[in-house]
Amino acid sequence: MSAPGPKLEFWYEFASTYSYLSAMRIDALAAAAGVAVAWKPFLLGPIFKAQGWDTSPFNLYPAKGRYMVRDLERLAADRGLAFVLPAVFPQNSLRATRLALIGGDEGWIVPFTRAVFAAEFVHGADIADTRLLDTLLRSLHLDSERLLSRIAQPDTKARLQQRTAEAQQRGVFGAPSFICGGELFWGDDRLEQALAWAARP
Amino acid sequence: MSAPGPKLEFWYEFASTYSYLSAMRIDALAAAAGVAVAWKPFLLGPIFKAQGWDTSPFNLYPAKGRYMVRDLERLAADRGLAFVLPAVFPQNSLRATRLALIGGDEGWIVPFTRAVFAAEFVHGADIADTRLLDTLLRSLHLDSERLLSRIAQPDTKARLQQRTAEAQQRGVFGAPSFICGGELFWGDDRLEQALAWAARP
Repeated sequence: MSAPGPKLEFWYEFASTYSYLSAMRIDALAAAAGVAVAWKPFLLGPIFKAQGWDTSPFNLYPAKGRYMVRDLERLAADRGLAFVLPAVFPQNSLRATRLALIGGDEGWIVPFTRAVFAAEFVHGADIADTRLLDTLLRSLHLDSERLLSRIAQPDTKARLQQRTAEAQQRGVFGAPSFICGGELFWGDDRLEQALAWAARP
Repeated sequence: MSAPGPKLEFWYEFASTYSYLSAMRIDALAAAAGVAVAWKPFLLGPIFKAQGWDTSPFNLYPAKGRYMVRDLERLAADRGLAFVLPAVFPQNSLRATRLALIGGDEGWIVPFTRAVFAAEFVHGADIADTRLLDTLLRSLHLDSERLLSRIAQPDTKARLQQRTAEAQQRGVFGAPSFICGGELFWGDDRLEQALAWAARP
């Protein structure tokens, strides 16, 4: 059963600093705008690879990388958020993303997503580490053993591949992206505009 | 003589669509914030070349290019501005930028900059065309013959090279960029934040 009313898709990548910013504020802004949010985790790696990049553009272009860190520091401070760049950047987000897809089916994707982003960008933790994921799942009172065992299962892998292919098909080239109908909005700084678009009568 | 009070440097590239957006609104926003603006035209080409790009990233990455056009259409519509992508993109901005540097010395840089951007992104004109530049200079009641003859002079060339080297040195990697003291802000969507930073007590 799908709720009526305006909807916005929130496409995010766990390794993405700007996705962290959006994940921490989208629910409050969407509620105020009367818009429902569909959380869509995906992997940017294959999309970057298709355009010839083997890592984040923030690593490929050092001036852009230095700028991104300062931009995040300023934006996070304005919003009362903490921000640290983890020692390894970008992080390997494969396991966390597969878990989030399961969370989408089971109703815990939103708190799990926020917990992963906080571990990564507030505490600098390594989100590829199964022990960290185990701790996060338990903190949400979830059956960690069952969920961790599903990460490597073929159906989980296939779903993430489909999700990422869908992102590419729909024109997503960075994260976060917001989609409403045929309209794509890229970047945390387009969140308000995307919500206004979704809420139009 | 330099005016007292807060200042913001506006670094722009004539070929840049987002620089067009900022050029059309920075004066009104800066006046409201009590901030003086220093207009700093420069060339992005050499900076892109230094990071391995031989054209605009909007051409190198087609999904990003398609998005940019739609993003500009939406933003321009919201602001009551026209927007067309010129037939050749990015345009060769060398001559217009050298003229703008002279305009900085002589006090006509702001109306000239707006006239160039309007010709390019409202009317789709070719800003590399000396006849167009002649028309724009005359429309501002300037001595077009004298100014066009200065475009290829060694001191004009040297000044633009210095300006572009300064941009690179100060961490500029895209346009528009705004600089206040040691703080760099990138993108038309950071203009309000940059002005607020410059206006801080």
